[in-house]
Amino acid sequence: MGSSFGKTIKLTIFGESHGPAIGAVLEGLPPGLKVDTDYMAAELDKRRAYGSISTARREADIPEILSGVKNRLTEGTPLALIIRNTDVRSQDYQNSTVPRPSHADFTAQAKYLGFQDASGGGHFSGRLTAPIVAACAIIKQALEEKGILIGTHIARMATAEDRPFADDPAENIKTLAGLQFPVLDSSAAAEMQQIIERCAAESDSVGGVLETAVCGLDAGIGEPIFDTIEGEIAKAMFAVPAIKGVEFGAGFALGQSRGSQANDSFAVEGSKIVTTSNNSGGVNGGITNGMPVVFRTVVKPTPSIGKTQQSVDIQTLQPAELSIKGRHDPAIIHRARPVLDALTALVIADFYAQRYGYMWLRNDR
Amino acid sequence: MGSSFGKTIKLTIFGESHGPAIGAVLEGLPPGLKVDTDYMAAELDKRRAYGSISTARREADIPEILSGVKNRLTEGTPLALIIRNTDVRSQDYQNSTVPRPSHADFTAQAKYLGFQDASGGGHFSGRLTAPIVAACAIIKQALEEKGILIGTHIARMATAEDRPFADDPAENIKTLAGLQFPVLDSSAAAEMQQIIERCAAESDSVGGVLETAVCGLDAGIGEPIFDTIEGEIAKAMFAVPAIKGVEFGAGFALGQSRGSQANDSFAVEGSKIVTTSNNSGGVNGGITNGMPVVFRTVVKPTPSIGKTQQSVDIQTLQPAELSIKGRHDPAIIHRARPVLDALTALVIADFYAQRYGYMWLRNDR
Amino acid sequence: MGSSFGKTIKLTIFGESHGPAIGAVLEGLPPGLKVDTDYMAAELDKRRAYGSISTARREADIPEILSGVKNRLTEGTPLALIIRNTDVRSQDYQNSTVPRPSHADFTAQAKYLGFQDASGGGHFSGRLTAPIVAACAIIKQALEEKGILIGTHIARMATAEDRPFADDPAENIKTLAGLQFPVLDSSAAAEMQQIIERCAAESDSVGGVLETAVCGLDAGIGEPIFDTIEGEIAKAMFAVPAIKGVEFGAGFALGQSRGSQANDSFAVEGSKIVTTSNNSGGVNGGITNGMPVVFRTVVKPTPSIGKTQQSVDIQTLQPAELSIKGRHDPAIIHRARPVLDALTALVIADFYAQRYGYMWLRNDR
Amino acid sequence: MGSSFGKTIKLTIFGESHGPAIGAVLEGLPPGLKVDTDYMAAELDKRRAYGSISTARREADIPEILSGVKNRLTEGTPLALIIRNTDVRSQDYQNSTVPRPSHADFTAQAKYLGFQDASGGGHFSGRLTAPIVAACAIIKQALEEKGILIGTHIARMATAEDRPFADDPAENIKTLAGLQFPVLDSSAAAEMQQIIERCAAESDSVGGVLETAVCGLDAGIGEPIFDTIEGEIAKAMFAVPAIKGVEFGAGFALGQSRGSQANDSFAVEGSKIVTTSNNSGGVNGGITNGMPVVFRTVVKPTPSIGKTQQSVDIQTLQPAELSIKGRHDPAIIHRARPVLDALTALVIADFYAQRYGYMWLRNDR
Repeated sequence: MGSSFGKTIKLTIFGESHGPAIGAVLEGLPPGLKVDTDYMAAELDKRRAYGSISTARREADIPEILSGVKNRLTEGTPLALIIRNTDVRSQDYQNSTVPRPSHADFTAQAKYLGFQDASGGGHFSGRLTAPIVAACAIIKQALEEKGILIGTHIARMATAEDRPFADDPAENIKTLAGLQFPVLDSSAAAEMQQIIERCAAESDSVGGVLETAVCGLDAGIGEPIFDTIEGEIAKAMFAVPAIKGVEFGAGFALGQSRGSQANDSFAVEGSKIVTTSNNSGGVNGGITNGMPVVFRTVVKPTPSIGKTQQSVDIQTLQPAELSIKGRHDPAIIHRARPVLDALTALVIADFYAQRYGYMWLRNDR
Repeated sequence: MGSSFGKTIKLTIFGESHGPAIGAVLEGLPPGLKVDTDYMAAELDKRRAYGSISTARREADIPEILSGVKNRLTEGTPLALIIRNTDVRSQDYQNSTVPRPSHADFTAQAKYLGFQDASGGGHFSGRLTAPIVAACAIIKQALEEKGILIGTHIARMATAEDRPFADDPAENIKTLAGLQFPVLDSSAAAEMQQIIERCAAESDSVGGVLETAVCGLDAGIGEPIFDTIEGEIAKAMFAVPAIKGVEFGAGFALGQSRGSQANDSFAVEGSKIVTTSNNSGGVNGGITNGMPVVFRTVVKPTPSIGKTQQSVDIQTLQPAELSIKGRHDPAIIHRARPVLDALTALVIADFYAQRYGYMWLRNDR
Repeated sequence: MGSSFGKTIKLTIFGESHGPAIGAVLEGLPPGLKVDTDYMAAELDKRRAYGSISTARREADIPEILSGVKNRLTEGTPLALIIRNTDVRSQDYQNSTVPRPSHADFTAQAKYLGFQDASGGGHFSGRLTAPIVAACAIIKQALEEKGILIGTHIARMATAEDRPFADDPAENIKTLAGLQFPVLDSSAAAEMQQIIERCAAESDSVGGVLETAVCGLDAGIGEPIFDTIEGEIAKAMFAVPAIKGVEFGAGFALGQSRGSQANDSFAVEGSKIVTTSNNSGGVNGGITNGMPVVFRTVVKPTPSIGKTQQSVDIQTLQPAELSIKGRHDPAIIHRARPVLDALTALVIADFYAQRYGYMWLRNDR
Repeated sequence: MGSSFGKTIKLTIFGESHGPAIGAVLEGLPPGLKVDTDYMAAELDKRRAYGSISTARREADIPEILSGVKNRLTEGTPLALIIRNTDVRSQDYQNSTVPRPSHADFTAQAKYLGFQDASGGGHFSGRLTAPIVAACAIIKQALEEKGILIGTHIARMATAEDRPFADDPAENIKTLAGLQFPVLDSSAAAEMQQIIERCAAESDSVGGVLETAVCGLDAGIGEPIFDTIEGEIAKAMFAVPAIKGVEFGAGFALGQSRGSQANDSFAVEGSKIVTTSNNSGGVNGGITNGMPVVFRTVVKPTPSIGKTQQSVDIQTLQPAELSIKGRHDPAIIHRARPVLDALTALVIADFYAQRYGYMWLRNDR
């Protein structure tokens, strides 16, 4: 039952990689919101694999909207969209009995008892993030029109590091919107791309760290004790199977610092109270403080690699070597970027909707 | 509305530090579960401040159970418990107009518009974690009787590092249950205690990193896409205001590793499929793989410090110096330990309850 | 886990009749809402038994508010309140093995497996409605200040019938607010009171039908397909164990009518579109149409009666006669009145909160 | 956001009558459940209009299953299905400015502010019940295999009355499964069909009362205080816009009865405790007592009638006469039958799933 996210604005995701279609239902949008399929396509395009038209399977396909939209505006009823899977499996496909290390093959087997369709990753395929991006693009764009901007860059990949977000990341976010490979520093970008190419050549893969910023938020948003800004964002991020950690502001470095260093002093800027540093990542007590919300997520190396790996045949319980054939993404971190933006938009809009109602999101207010 | 956590087993927390009482309501427990107030008291005792009877305020007080328990067994109806606040404020207390840096003072003001009772930290006091620990102690103990063990140690504080959990952390967890200061390596413990004392002497505070392990879990637990093991645990952890990051398995280190290093190979141990490393932290695709679930959380330094800090008067918008008087905890990381254990127990039990029903938790099954 | 009601504004109820206390937690109230204990007491007073100071147990006791209120205003944090049970049972009380017909004794035993505390009705005591009334009084009063009025009268008891609500029931509602026995027509009231007295004399009990009206609602409130006005109100009503049916507008009479008779024609009144009849009970398609929402609920006769009844001993499975000793309410229908008003207020406020946010309920908007 | 129903097993509905497609997502099914499209088709077929191939639009179309099913068995992942709308509107369709009396036209306008697609009833078309029936057919069939049977007949239409369910309605339910027009007494059926034909001739419509029974339930199912059997069933029923009332057991007649008449005496039958009457409709205190759950729902006359009606133009606020052209159902009560069965199956299965987990529904347990 864990396929929905959000309280007042709620997203439900369904589909298997090789089933007839994947899709999303988005409830709780107000009527009259713009549905801009160009914007949606641009967000989806950020999920493209590195190296031009590189995946075996093209996903540029724009989703078909089945309900909730009339004359390119939301109706206020549930919005459903689907993306067809074009190279559909035969119905009596057999799952492999040798699970890929660190993939969901084994755990899906344990949970779904063999009834799951594991082909192409099944319900755990990265492809499932496409309807997330498509549906949340509507929200992300509506937030932009209210001055709330969301953006993500690759902060680190192996040894290569991008420069961090500026204190006010609004300009950075606008820059990133135009970049297919989301790195602020072009020499860092080049270095990362070399790393990816090296991994590809070696039939290996690489992980990295993404940094996301949200600016334009009011202070006072968040619903502690349990529905904190950090908690909801973190929960949403872990919907991406490759993500294994989330930290806000100075994050894990705070484990080695003193209060006198870590505390963010208050100051006045115009008529607004600000902090002179942002070690808190824009959140205190689970509530926004009006500074940019900044968090980092770690993306593990893609588990599907060409190199030979040790596994086990789950039927015979015998050791089995596994070398995955075909082309595989040596890195998916840049492809995760629009997904993080999408999920962050959903979380933020849902918090506002709880406080001010779903009608708040309308463009004309 | 964010004061509840859990779907089938649900915890609701209420209270302000200087109001009449704080408390919890725990719904979804099966009938017939043991309510062992000694176990509960032992868990609450782990929240004691460092340095013996150290806080100005003693919290050893056992909660009063108002409902849901008869003859020391759960009835199956909602269990409510409260802890009285003994040094209650006057009713017309005025909030301070100078918020403490990196505390929730400012954000609570933005959210609650000045109507909140901020004295003693109000709804954001660490004291609010006591009913969490008390209520979830019942769950934690019930899980133990089913062979699911949960434990937390201080992995790092500033420069001091504890040794990591063993591959099978069951023994570590049993050891930790008997330690007031939860560090496996006694020399690391001594070093950390010196750090705390130094901070106390300098009117400063220090953060650290906690590591939690859960063992005895079945493979196949978790409800992706959104209700993942990682996501629910992370969300629960961020209910502790001091926590600013969560990572599973190898965590942020995965951002610098290759797939060929990071992937956990499968092997057979007896009749069970295991992995030869645990970089995944026991979770793939949001579902348990049967290995111990291991995660780390960073606890920021206590924001309330004696040192003079820069703040702003929110009424006059003038800069204001702040030196917080009285005794303050130089570290709360060890006090967060039972809270993490408690919340982890809640998350795990709720996942089982969704799959097998809340009756699953009964001792006699 | 079914002890909570509401999405954005959420009420949780706990307690057993002979446990230490019963109570409520109310989440999602905005900060700054008036908490008027006189109003709350007046609502609670409407739960008094017929015949002056009639129940063995006085419940005039005002609840103790434990959290969420400062200076008689809500803080915006969860509001918890409790009512102590003064004549508390011994801890090792044994449940009766002979369940009362049509009471929850037998079903509670089946559900809670004997671990429940059944004394005094346990979790199913009518007493549990007191915290509902107390907590929702705050909401009901806040709605009144926004022009949304809620009132309930006894439409029928056995052969006695009150006159129906006027087309605009606002005046009726104001009248009812001042009546201890909520009947608009005083001769009908007298007749009903005679019926009650006759039942009391005969050790029997009597049921009836309540009619509730809500006026001042905007058109457009409701969240179909599933979260309809009718559906949420009905669900809330069935929280009162004695209620066995709910109908809106012309209700069950619609089963014998034609469309040409049943349809409510539209007309214009001033600048507002109204209907010339209200067979729809103010709701179409699950959404308010701006007319008063009017519904009726049937209250079954109190199951606890003095007359001898046939039951079964659940341990021996032998037939057993049951004659319940002591004083029992021959009718509880008038006592259910404030509970229906309270739950209706909760439902209405929650719908507004979903659409316009919980901040909508504030008095100053 | 009210388009989902259920906690552990959750149904989400989307679509507009003249949009591209309508559909459902069903979460929380266990893996390995049979998906029998013949059974599904038979349930959908019960939604056929009276008078053979009578509606302008044929809906016999079997839904397309997009996800969650492999080899005719559930996978355990969300099951999505859609039904295409074949005669799709042009994208820039204009809503009528003259709302139909007692239809959702006016309230949808108030809620969705004119952005809704009202053609063919839009989101409020009876057509939206097709995906409910299709998705819940899987659950209904799974319950049958566990001995839980659900059936509905027309208890009354205008002056015509069917005979009531037998004390044990299992045989009645089996009979109804084979009837296109669900009436137990064939002469009553004939009388009702004459009434329908007369209404059709007079361009009018007629309402009625449905009676539903569930047998094979355990005692002890239900989650009071708020998630009662009655409350959840009632809420589900009101998802059908034509339903305006729900009563359990003796229902509204209890308002005129005495406790000594209304109470259901206990007796022993074999080794089972039963009641000798079923005025409680199988539920006490919101929990099943092991007797059949029996409830009645009133279906108002179809609001769309050929006769001339009084309405108002919502733009000019001038009175407007309305005569709806084309063929309209003079009665929809028999078509509501499979929808009630479907929703009842969902409610029952969800209650079991909360108590025993979603894995409970599996055929092999």
